[in-house]
Amino acid sequence: MGRVAARAEEVLQSDIELLDATNRSLLSQGGKRLRPMLSLLAAGACGGINDDSIRFAAASELMHNATLLHDDVVDGATLRRGMPTVMSLLSGPASVLLGDYWLVKAVKCILDASRDGERVIRLFAKTLSDLAEGELLQLQRSTYADTSREDYFRIIYSKTASLFEVAVLSGAISAGAPEEWTAALVAYARKLGLAFQVKDDILDYAGDGTVGKPLGIDLREGKVTLPLLCALETVSPEEAAEVRRSVVSLDGDPVLEERIRSFVRERDGVAMAAREMDCLLDEAVSALEELPASVEKMYLAELARFVGERTF
Amino acid sequence: MGRVAARAEEVLQSDIELLDATNRSLLSQGGKRLRPMLSLLAAGACGGINDDSIRFAAASELMHNATLLHDDVVDGATLRRGMPTVMSLLSGPASVLLGDYWLVKAVKCILDASRDGERVIRLFAKTLSDLAEGELLQLQRSTYADTSREDYFRIIYSKTASLFEVAVLSGAISAGAPEEWTAALVAYARKLGLAFQVKDDILDYAGDGTVGKPLGIDLREGKVTLPLLCALETVSPEEAAEVRRSVVSLDGDPVLEERIRSFVRERDGVAMAAREMDCLLDEAVSALEELPASVEKMYLAELARFVGERTF
Repeated sequence: MGRVAARAEEVLQSDIELLDATNRSLLSQGGKRLRPMLSLLAAGACGGINDDSIRFAAASELMHNATLLHDDVVDGATLRRGMPTVMSLLSGPASVLLGDYWLVKAVKCILDASRDGERVIRLFAKTLSDLAEGELLQLQRSTYADTSREDYFRIIYSKTASLFEVAVLSGAISAGAPEEWTAALVAYARKLGLAFQVKDDILDYAGDGTVGKPLGIDLREGKVTLPLLCALETVSPEEAAEVRRSVVSLDGDPVLEERIRSFVRERDGVAMAAREMDCLLDEAVSALEELPASVEKMYLAELARFVGERTF
Repeated sequence: MGRVAARAEEVLQSDIELLDATNRSLLSQGGKRLRPMLSLLAAGACGGINDDSIRFAAASELMHNATLLHDDVVDGATLRRGMPTVMSLLSGPASVLLGDYWLVKAVKCILDASRDGERVIRLFAKTLSDLAEGELLQLQRSTYADTSREDYFRIIYSKTASLFEVAVLSGAISAGAPEEWTAALVAYARKLGLAFQVKDDILDYAGDGTVGKPLGIDLREGKVTLPLLCALETVSPEEAAEVRRSVVSLDGDPVLEERIRSFVRERDGVAMAAREMDCLLDEAVSALEELPASVEKMYLAELARFVGERTF
């Protein structure tokens, strides 16, 4: 992980002060670094980490941060990981440009690889396309609060699971993994990514504020996530339609907002969503069975437990 | 050009309505399509257009539009080509995401090429990095209105000329051009791109409003461009520093703004900038001499004339 961080630092160097200073501040803030860790564990589980594994792992972290820089503009977020965002420190425009810059640097890391660069670029491009599509679908659906269960899973796949997939996939490719191991890792990462986002959405309803970003914003923005979807599935179509209408007409009304939150609580929406998350995590761990025994495989299973239990 | 448009349309198709409708509306608005035209003319001048030329040309137009979508957010622009921007029709966030999406589709076009995909990706990545750096440098400098002549040319190279370069370069690569033709085309495109941006900056001072976007915004945003730089070079350092200070303290004051504009007029800043532009265009046309005679070469020289004379 130290070599991954060094690689990212190296490609991000710039002679433009504003850019260099901001890059360094963002790098030092860190975050969970889950995606590069997944990438390295996948490479390790498939035979070993090499220089290309480091490059692909760095690319997954750079790409993730690039999309966060754009997401912060999309969400108008002022806090991220408990720190002020670039958007609030500098401006929305700076956040957009910085995101573009980090994206290019992810591409650079990949193209520096000794082989499979073009294949991995293709995979990362698909992920970025998924990401933009997912966010745009979410924007579209939130206008009418008419997100279906199918929409929801497409959105969270695109927003989160797709990048988890490309992280393990590029790690496996760097290690020259056979087809069946790669497929197992991708299945694991998809389920893990979906569970990770479900947990995020649960924390938005039931978190204790240690998550490092403001809570409860999804609902206020008209986003229908799994806890609410589960609650809606327990009532009549008419009542569900009424709740959805009130989400659209929320407009910052705290009384109406509290009414929707009570509805989710009474209908046990969070607990139902948590059960679905646990199923996803079980499936993620099961997918690992195809892999040979290794320390990395053990850590990957461990990571699934961490995703389920995290409160931040 | 018809095949280029069809290619762009094809890769942009999406089953997400909001995305598909917006893509189609943007495609229909067109614009000058200068970059794909440069790309095709370069391929033609080097021996002939093939399927890869079409792909690279489409990529240059997609990339250009992607950066415009991000630029509109950076500039808070409500009009582009005389039409409301995505930012004003939908939102800043949608414009950011759509830009990401078009960027990915540019990458897709390139990777679909039968050869040289990785090389061309690398070139486009460098251009996008230039672009983000240029915009960030401009943001940084505009805070103090301390843009030097050197900064200015770096900014406009990054903002405009870099993409012109990659357009002709990818066209030449698709046609398998020898080194000296490629170098000539790149020299041509760099000068042409610089001249194109100088013209843009001249129009911002002296345009007649047919340019399809609001005029005079550069100055209001603290951006020091060539007409002002030329004017500043005719006065004492003390007076120049005072004018620069008034740019910083402008803050929407119409009297102060008119005073700076009068200063540029009295000092003949626009005419001096126009002379520099003419020199750049002469150099661009001279660079073409290395190329064998062809209709495309003639059109490239013609294009330089168009850039100098355009009023929009």
